[in-house]
Amino acid sequence: MRQYNLVSADDHVQEPGDTWTKRVPAKLRDRAPRIERGPDGDAWVIDGKRGRSMGMEVQGGKKFEEYKQSGETYDTIRKGAWDPVERLKDMDLDGVDAEVLYPNLGIGPLFLLDDLELQFACLRAYNDFLSEWCSTDPSRLIGIGLVPTDDVQVGVEELKHIAKLPGLRGALLPTYPRGEPLNSESYDPLWATAQELGIPMHIHLRTGDRRTEGLFQAGGRLRGNVDVILNLASLANYEALSRIIFGGVLEKFPKLKFVSVEGNIGWLGYFLEKSDRTYKRHRHHTGLDLPNPPSFYFHRQVLATFIEDKIGVMIRKAIGVENLMWSADYPHTDTTFPNSRQYIEEHFAGVPAEDRYKIVAGNAVKLYGLA
Amino acid sequence: MRQYNLVSADDHVQEPGDTWTKRVPAKLRDRAPRIERGPDGDAWVIDGKRGRSMGMEVQGGKKFEEYKQSGETYDTIRKGAWDPVERLKDMDLDGVDAEVLYPNLGIGPLFLLDDLELQFACLRAYNDFLSEWCSTDPSRLIGIGLVPTDDVQVGVEELKHIAKLPGLRGALLPTYPRGEPLNSESYDPLWATAQELGIPMHIHLRTGDRRTEGLFQAGGRLRGNVDVILNLASLANYEALSRIIFGGVLEKFPKLKFVSVEGNIGWLGYFLEKSDRTYKRHRHHTGLDLPNPPSFYFHRQVLATFIEDKIGVMIRKAIGVENLMWSADYPHTDTTFPNSRQYIEEHFAGVPAEDRYKIVAGNAVKLYGLA
Repeated sequence: MRQYNLVSADDHVQEPGDTWTKRVPAKLRDRAPRIERGPDGDAWVIDGKRGRSMGMEVQGGKKFEEYKQSGETYDTIRKGAWDPVERLKDMDLDGVDAEVLYPNLGIGPLFLLDDLELQFACLRAYNDFLSEWCSTDPSRLIGIGLVPTDDVQVGVEELKHIAKLPGLRGALLPTYPRGEPLNSESYDPLWATAQELGIPMHIHLRTGDRRTEGLFQAGGRLRGNVDVILNLASLANYEALSRIIFGGVLEKFPKLKFVSVEGNIGWLGYFLEKSDRTYKRHRHHTGLDLPNPPSFYFHRQVLATFIEDKIGVMIRKAIGVENLMWSADYPHTDTTFPNSRQYIEEHFAGVPAEDRYKIVAGNAVKLYGLA
Repeated sequence: MRQYNLVSADDHVQEPGDTWTKRVPAKLRDRAPRIERGPDGDAWVIDGKRGRSMGMEVQGGKKFEEYKQSGETYDTIRKGAWDPVERLKDMDLDGVDAEVLYPNLGIGPLFLLDDLELQFACLRAYNDFLSEWCSTDPSRLIGIGLVPTDDVQVGVEELKHIAKLPGLRGALLPTYPRGEPLNSESYDPLWATAQELGIPMHIHLRTGDRRTEGLFQAGGRLRGNVDVILNLASLANYEALSRIIFGGVLEKFPKLKFVSVEGNIGWLGYFLEKSDRTYKRHRHHTGLDLPNPPSFYFHRQVLATFIEDKIGVMIRKAIGVENLMWSADYPHTDTTFPNSRQYIEEHFAGVPAEDRYKIVAGNAVKLYGLA
């Protein structure tokens, strides 16, 4: 039996260049994402359109002063970003026993593909790919599959597929679905299926947010604009949790687990106090039919991941020690790699060992059934 | 000399029905906001269009169970909402020595008026009205004027007008200006004028946010949707502070004071930690030219108001004891009236008297030069 002393609850796979072309049906192959090398680096070409070259999403291990927004290739980044054998070595270097894995391209443009046949095929291909990737060591590489929301029935089928794929232990859906927001009852079949299959559902900051993608591109013109957009990222998770809770999703599906990923946690004390106050003061005039205050559902069913967040660790009891999971966010710009143990020492100085263990390992072990 | 033991840094005036019609130039009189009584209550008619009747903005003093979103008239609400003599009595009842005053209609539709001649005339008329209103007792009624941003030069002139109006000690601009966002250098003349005249600048949650207004109207269809929108309100201030700081406004205008109003404070510990991390990790690749980390500018120049916020008071040292101001938010749905003293006792149990004094009175006394 493996010992889990440090589980990182949010890391990313830079999908290899042939992830989609070798897995989607033949008739979609030419339009599926493929890597094209150019003078500006390696970039995804999707349905004929070349995006910006790799950068922000694969800077892990570099000095902050050397971070680049683009211009990278698979040869200039850490191999661990895309190669599972190398990833395990980087985890050893960083003292991480297991990682919970999210995509790179998959948290961005995939969910925004307008051609639904292509989108659904790409999400399926990613899930199959991730299962294979994790098979290198399924006790250490924990995969989170992708679930479409543009057609709820297709989403339900994908959840069933994810349940059968070895190595996958959760599912991600867009924080901002293109149709109705997350508090729409149209998603009930997804929640029902996830609850029935015991699959925790996840949202990850910015995923599916066309607006933010646009802002990023327009960013350079105004002073500090890209910094502002980076600084606002957690707010997407604040909104998603509000929708899931006030929308009654957690009330209606009491065994469903829901994870806020990469959104950090220092704002959650405020979120809970504010949400309970919104409930206390406003539910009469809004006609909200929810039998318990929001914090009740949060404590019962929500977990949230963070990377660096000293305020969050300080107010952990107000949030819930059982509701928090640390992560390294390898290989993103916010990663603590390769100094995760040092960051953790700084964050947990003076924190009881029991609290610390739950947050850096135990809660994830329990949620994903690792032990 | 008046003693200030309790200063509420955010309250609202329900503008009397003739606020605009008796003050705008004759040619605009028919289009200026006027109150029309209907079977559904008193509603503003602006440029011929009747809005929803009064409700949410004038519930102060009622039980939560009796809160109404609309359907009120000037005869069914507390007189203190619109009558300054009655307001002073309500302040006595609540133990409040002074109030900092924001509008009701003025934080909503006024800034969104597309006809700029009408908009500018209405903002001017409100400022003149508020000065008169505060003249009932200028030591207790502290007015905040309104500054347009759709034409920066007009905004500069309005700031100069505000500086001359007795009783006004600050200026509010929209959180979401319709043109460029707050980090645009196009607003530099506004900041320069405010700094020169010693006028603190304020943003108030939701003001100028056409998107939120729309969401509110569409709210009823999805479960919990209005509750979600209410729950997200503070995020507007998170965004505005990010723009003001990363946009270099506070760096360029080091004597400018900037106040986040009604946004609460429990999220500010996270905001500061996250902002400094965004600065540390990302400024190299974004090319941000800001000599100090964001928290430096916040501590030097920003104050934030809150109503109920126990987490915020708990982490006050991480935010800055000099940067916080309590408020009663009379006569909004979130108000602590008429039990403000009791709420304050609960919030400040165990807090040193010096910290408490600064937050419930001293910081406002200093900012607005009350003593």
